Amino acid sequence: MVDVDNALNIIYENTKEADLEKKDILSCLNKVLAENIYSQDNLPPFDKSAMDGYAIKSEYTRGCGTEKSVKLEIRGIIRAGYYCEDELEVGQAFKIMTGAPLPKGADAVIEIEKVKVEGNILIISEEVDKGNNVIKLGEEIKVGELALTKGSNIRPVEIGLLASLGYSSIKVYKSPTVALIITGDELVDIDSELEKGKIRNSNEYSLKALIKNSGAEALSLGVVSDDKDNLKEKVKYALENADIVITSGGASVGDYDFVDDVLKEIGADVKFTSVAIKPGKPITFATYKEKLFFALPGNPSSIITVFEGFVKPAIRKIMGKQEEDMEEFPVILAEDFEAKIGRRKYVYVEIKVDNGKYYAYKVGSQCSNHLMTMSRANGIVIIPEECGNVKVGDVLNGKFIFR
Amino acid sequence: MVDVDNALNIIYENTKEADLEKKDILSCLNKVLAENIYSQDNLPPFDKSAMDGYAIKSEYTRGCGTEKSVKLEIRGIIRAGYYCEDELEVGQAFKIMTGAPLPKGADAVIEIEKVKVEGNILIISEEVDKGNNVIKLGEEIKVGELALTKGSNIRPVEIGLLASLGYSSIKVYKSPTVALIITGDELVDIDSELEKGKIRNSNEYSLKALIKNSGAEALSLGVVSDDKDNLKEKVKYALENADIVITSGGASVGDYDFVDDVLKEIGADVKFTSVAIKPGKPITFATYKEKLFFALPGNPSSIITVFEGFVKPAIRKIMGKQEEDMEEFPVILAEDFEAKIGRRKYVYVEIKVDNGKYYAYKVGSQCSNHLMTMSRANGIVIIPEECGNVKVGDVLNGKFIFR
Repeated sequence: MVDVDNALNIIYENTKEADLEKKDILSCLNKVLAENIYSQDNLPPFDKSAMDGYAIKSEYTRGCGTEKSVKLEIRGIIRAGYYCEDELEVGQAFKIMTGAPLPKGADAVIEIEKVKVEGNILIISEEVDKGNNVIKLGEEIKVGELALTKGSNIRPVEIGLLASLGYSSIKVYKSPTVALIITGDELVDIDSELEKGKIRNSNEYSLKALIKNSGAEALSLGVVSDDKDNLKEKVKYALENADIVITSGGASVGDYDFVDDVLKEIGADVKFTSVAIKPGKPITFATYKEKLFFALPGNPSSIITVFEGFVKPAIRKIMGKQEEDMEEFPVILAEDFEAKIGRRKYVYVEIKVDNGKYYAYKVGSQCSNHLMTMSRANGIVIIPEECGNVKVGDVLNGKFIFR
Repeated sequence: MVDVDNALNIIYENTKEADLEKKDILSCLNKVLAENIYSQDNLPPFDKSAMDGYAIKSEYTRGCGTEKSVKLEIRGIIRAGYYCEDELEVGQAFKIMTGAPLPKGADAVIEIEKVKVEGNILIISEEVDKGNNVIKLGEEIKVGELALTKGSNIRPVEIGLLASLGYSSIKVYKSPTVALIITGDELVDIDSELEKGKIRNSNEYSLKALIKNSGAEALSLGVVSDDKDNLKEKVKYALENADIVITSGGASVGDYDFVDDVLKEIGADVKFTSVAIKPGKPITFATYKEKLFFALPGNPSSIITVFEGFVKPAIRKIMGKQEEDMEEFPVILAEDFEAKIGRRKYVYVEIKVDNGKYYAYKVGSQCSNHLMTMSRANGIVIIPEECGNVKVGDVLNGKFIFR
């Protein structure tokens, strides 16, 4: 049995970043940039007005105020999108719209709300600073400068920035395909009647949802009966057609748990077969060539916990994403929680915030079968391996779930 | 000009939840449940073994320990998915697999690791409590009990829970369609050369990404020239074909900003035309029949700020989602920040966590044109309307962005 941190390290060591692909920018949303992006232009490409107003030479307004005004001739109007070739001459101003380029000779813009206009004459009664309401050529970024670094997350702002820099497609890390194999003769499909001894297949559905939210693609091979040869065929097919293979159930020590046998027979490199985590001890991690194999426990809430704890980090690394190290925060226990020393315990709770502090409340049985408990939870608190029972007022690390 | 809280209240008052639709559960991921879900079954549907082990009557082990053992005849094996009709008789045990139903007469399971087996004989050397490793019939939920409440978010755990309860489809709130109309004669497409006075259309791309991440559908009408009749036709089309219409640019007081004119001409009910927020003051909100209309500023970082601040909450309400009231938290300023009294200022920063506390660092110019600044930020700090400059060590509310 390895501890949680070791398990995660072993997984990271055996996980490589994906190959790259070039995609149109909107298809790259929530993926990770796999190249440095340099600006091909100056942004803005010209001195630009930040306001609707009047483009002037600031020195004309020197000394203006409540006592003194300056009158300028309004020579014309410059709209956004139109370039004015004329140069501002002494005593003149141009009306200018937000986003329009300043005419030659102008070095400031005064807002439309701050002036008086009489016919063709502009009256200014305040001093205007040089550069006022002007976004200078190259102020945001200059030609050749680094705009986005390899490894950046592509959020809506990066999509907009790439568009403004003229990048319609970029290189990103490919999303992995995750194959699912659900084992268990007790499982019937969602729409079936429950015969004696049977329960419904729920893990396939939770896993598909988890995979979708992690940004990967699911390839489900459905429910496979507890038969070794059949399982072996499915595992081989999955390893050929996916980057990661997950089995649900069949990884315990029972007489009908064949996953570890199959892994040996196909020559997979088994790295560990159990982790000191609760819920979710029986987790096998193996590699086969460059593919990753996770045999996860069959209990519905265990499988969600260990997917989030071990499979999702692997998916994130494949996709070039950073470790989520800012997720945990201190949580004050609002109640006592029972726990045994030995494994790291993930306790599903409701985290409420009060006056900037986080408090954890019970939401039901921590039995590893109970999705009902998890469905009432918005977070977990983590009871360390060396701790048993914890008391109201104790402070533990916690985090929100499904974020 | 209305303040941010008033603006948001006006938007909420005029926003209704969407109509319902019934969809298969996996298509409902990240949507909101629009009906109460009651359990049609007991979960588990039988007393179930939580471990691989031996099903016994606990009373046989009374007094067992290092000094005393009990020997039981192993009568057979019960696999998960198979129901045993036979009753456990005095002095007997059944081998039982995880998830299998207990045979009649058994009330506990002892783990496989804790016993000795000699041929057909099971040797137990410890006391086993009644109910040990047994998940009782209906322990998770009983027939007729409320499993999920109308308004619940459908996360991976809810998908799994619904599957386990036999619900293959559920009622959710429909996702709204958001139409986009981008105005500005200065805009050229992403792949075009930048002629003099032109910039690239980036808002269409950021908005499409924001809409996608909010769970809504985008319907882009592309860039519309600064021509009132043309704009009016597009606005009418958009109002007929979408639930929300967004225009980008054209909402200031300039001579070529026609949005407010168009709204008057078509008879829209204009609720406000500017908000005390920075970046992003010129925001028009109007309703037309049951449709929502947002005229947003054209500046690239303003439009993202006000989309997140005003449009996304409307989308969330339409989709039945709760207000995100847990998002803000106290942030300590690591540097001074300049600000003017009057509007509520959203300052883009890097938030770093240190020893459980959050600190805000500058990432560049807060000019409302600069996507570069926002692309270096992971959060904002909010400087209240009544505050001007703020100093290192001051504590403000902040939040992470694009979550």
